[in-house]
Amino acid sequence: MARNTQVAADHAAPPITQILAGFVATHPSRGWSNAVEHEAQRTFLNWAGCAVGAATHEAMRAALAAVQVLQPTAQASVLGRREQVDIASAALLNGISSHTFDFDDTHLLTIIHPAGPVASAALALAEHLDASGRALIDALVLGIDVSCRIGNLMYPEHYDRGWHITGSTGSLGAAAACARLLGLDTHATAMALGIAASQPVGLREQFGTMTKPFHPGAAARAGLTSALLAQHGFTASTRALEAPRGYAQTVSTKCAWHEATDELGERFEISFNTYKPFACGIVIHPVIDASVQLREQGVRAEDIQRIELRVHSLVLELTGKQEPANGLEAKFSVYHGCAAGLIFGRAGEPQFADEIVTRDDVVALRRKVTATVDDSIDEAAAHVSATLADGRRVQVVVEHAIGSLKRPMSDAALEAKFSDQAEPVLGADRTAQLIAACRGIADLPSVRALAALARPAAG
Amino acid sequence: MARNTQVAADHAAPPITQILAGFVATHPSRGWSNAVEHEAQRTFLNWAGCAVGAATHEAMRAALAAVQVLQPTAQASVLGRREQVDIASAALLNGISSHTFDFDDTHLLTIIHPAGPVASAALALAEHLDASGRALIDALVLGIDVSCRIGNLMYPEHYDRGWHITGSTGSLGAAAACARLLGLDTHATAMALGIAASQPVGLREQFGTMTKPFHPGAAARAGLTSALLAQHGFTASTRALEAPRGYAQTVSTKCAWHEATDELGERFEISFNTYKPFACGIVIHPVIDASVQLREQGVRAEDIQRIELRVHSLVLELTGKQEPANGLEAKFSVYHGCAAGLIFGRAGEPQFADEIVTRDDVVALRRKVTATVDDSIDEAAAHVSATLADGRRVQVVVEHAIGSLKRPMSDAALEAKFSDQAEPVLGADRTAQLIAACRGIADLPSVRALAALARPAAG
Repeated sequence: MARNTQVAADHAAPPITQILAGFVATHPSRGWSNAVEHEAQRTFLNWAGCAVGAATHEAMRAALAAVQVLQPTAQASVLGRREQVDIASAALLNGISSHTFDFDDTHLLTIIHPAGPVASAALALAEHLDASGRALIDALVLGIDVSCRIGNLMYPEHYDRGWHITGSTGSLGAAAACARLLGLDTHATAMALGIAASQPVGLREQFGTMTKPFHPGAAARAGLTSALLAQHGFTASTRALEAPRGYAQTVSTKCAWHEATDELGERFEISFNTYKPFACGIVIHPVIDASVQLREQGVRAEDIQRIELRVHSLVLELTGKQEPANGLEAKFSVYHGCAAGLIFGRAGEPQFADEIVTRDDVVALRRKVTATVDDSIDEAAAHVSATLADGRRVQVVVEHAIGSLKRPMSDAALEAKFSDQAEPVLGADRTAQLIAACRGIADLPSVRALAALARPAAG
Repeated sequence: MARNTQVAADHAAPPITQILAGFVATHPSRGWSNAVEHEAQRTFLNWAGCAVGAATHEAMRAALAAVQVLQPTAQASVLGRREQVDIASAALLNGISSHTFDFDDTHLLTIIHPAGPVASAALALAEHLDASGRALIDALVLGIDVSCRIGNLMYPEHYDRGWHITGSTGSLGAAAACARLLGLDTHATAMALGIAASQPVGLREQFGTMTKPFHPGAAARAGLTSALLAQHGFTASTRALEAPRGYAQTVSTKCAWHEATDELGERFEISFNTYKPFACGIVIHPVIDASVQLREQGVRAEDIQRIELRVHSLVLELTGKQEPANGLEAKFSVYHGCAAGLIFGRAGEPQFADEIVTRDDVVALRRKVTATVDDSIDEAAAHVSATLADGRRVQVVVEHAIGSLKRPMSDAALEAKFSDQAEPVLGADRTAQLIAACRGIADLPSVRALAALARPAAG
């Protein structure tokens, strides 16, 4: 019985609310390796590019219009837009935009997209507080540590149950980050986590609708509000995370408590963050990666007679659409991914535009692609071989796609991804300046300068 | 296995998101009996009194201070205060205050406190829209119907799992009420319910902290925001409530779908709403009721030699504190409840003040009370007998306490409860005017007049 399981689980539950609160409140600034620090910059850069990139999307237009009914004060920036809103609404809106293209970051152990809730809340509050870049990055590392550790202790049962784990753990990460920025002590930080624990956000049923990116946004807003409430003396249970009728046991049947505290302050979950190089489901990435490599080896689309893919059955099950009619369908077509990689050498959001998906040369190349199932090949791998008009055959085998933990995106590739997204919104000059600001964020005396760069010029 | 149960349950799931959305969007104004209409007025009056009463509580001070960091525009009223805030924050704050004393209303089948989320969201939005009282009452009836029907289909498993059902169903009720006020069509109303479905609020672990009353407040804010998003074209799953990874199957193992739709538009859940006559746990109510009746029969505290209670074992298990040291402990003391009923003839929030709980005559009478367990007596009943100094013995047996469905509070008693709470905040004159406005709410051309009466005079 569920009730017995809960009680049994609780007997083993350490006081993780207090432990995590103490960690967030007292861990020293930059108390981690250079590698962790570097990953924090990359996480922030990648998040900011995604938020800027989707700033003019229909979901953002709708959300901004709704928020403006509240007549918000101009306290904080909406990345990629000229409007300013109150900090809670800025957290909401930046959380929505950064996840709109499903192109942000992934903590692979839990499939949490950690920056959306945490960075969105932290930047809005930091901008209002006129905090330093150092303080923001500290908040980002600690906030992501909290949400991913809570994810670790519940995954996969919590996700299987139906929760969109990015939003359901995100309010905790956002609360932790904001508590840190506000300088709350351990007790007040525990209150912030406690208030946030009552606000898990997100159902998997929403995938494919605007409410999916709403999840990290609403989690960001909930976490930020929770920290403000705690700062002003609002109270919550001191055992909100671990108690029998607390957060974890209410939203998950798995509660591996040790995940919350193992190597706390030594191992940082942001080290395991990855960034999507391609704007589509992760299962197509190995094929696109191989196709880009073929192109880099000199294979030209016009010389191709046929292309043969060998992939795990899951790839075709999820992305076997042979004749996608538009951009959305193309995200579920391994055939389109292959053609895009060969023709453009990339597969960002622009390469999934409707007019690209239906362009003659793209359609023609796509029709030359055949796929064979081979379950001896790993789900994360792909074999791609091109037969050319002159009879030559060129093959690329990808064991770990670019963007995986084994083959992380280079800093240059991350900047190229950022530019792809930001240039249409901000222009090339401002995009370059914003990249530089994100790169040097830890040394910025005020994050306001960075936020200002993410605002398009007038007109 | 949980996963199999979910799939099995889904096969039987009718499209309740669409059905409820159509009901909320198209049911005619005042399409119910006079009894339902009367209960709607009572629900609103009782809610407003609770919100005004707690307007100066510490939880409200903290919440208001946190919200004011966002520098909200003065769009809507906070009942019992002079501050005005944006409508989403007004929904949050009125939701918090109305549940702070745990003295509001109860839908007994689900122990949902329905007005907190629904009325708080509806009044804030109605005030902003300059809506009529008729529109507000329609929204209240329909919103409460949605949250309580969703509660019916999941109770008790959902509550047992750890959810504070008032908040976890409240965002749906608030979304329905606000969608109705905005005049959304069936599709947009379904989107509002869908967005709200991703935001269940509330853990039972928070009971005893300020986060408990935060739950209806956060649910009110979530529902209101969801309706605004839907109005501006934001999308959600059309099957957000009933899909396998939708709301009900994610937060509950019981999904009795028919509860959502049985007699929809014929039976209204607000008919089953009850109001707490006494500001403490419901299990003490029969004893207080009996004690008040003894007083009304002429029994005077100073003549009492001893009092004997015969109650179900649950009463002493939950409220057996013999020497409460303060107001909070007194809420868990059936002995104090008995003494308060005999001395004051009532047991509102003032009768649980620290200085009352420790007053000599109250302590002296409390010590004359003994309690005996008798499990042949119903949990909702009590036998109270007083032995007087002259040797006489007077007994009162209560089978159904005042405030239960069998013995509802009279309109006069509801007004007295309102006055008890509102007069210390608004003064007697304004309180009387506000009661009259709540009584005549369905005929008010604008709810703004009512909201203005709930604002204390300057100084």
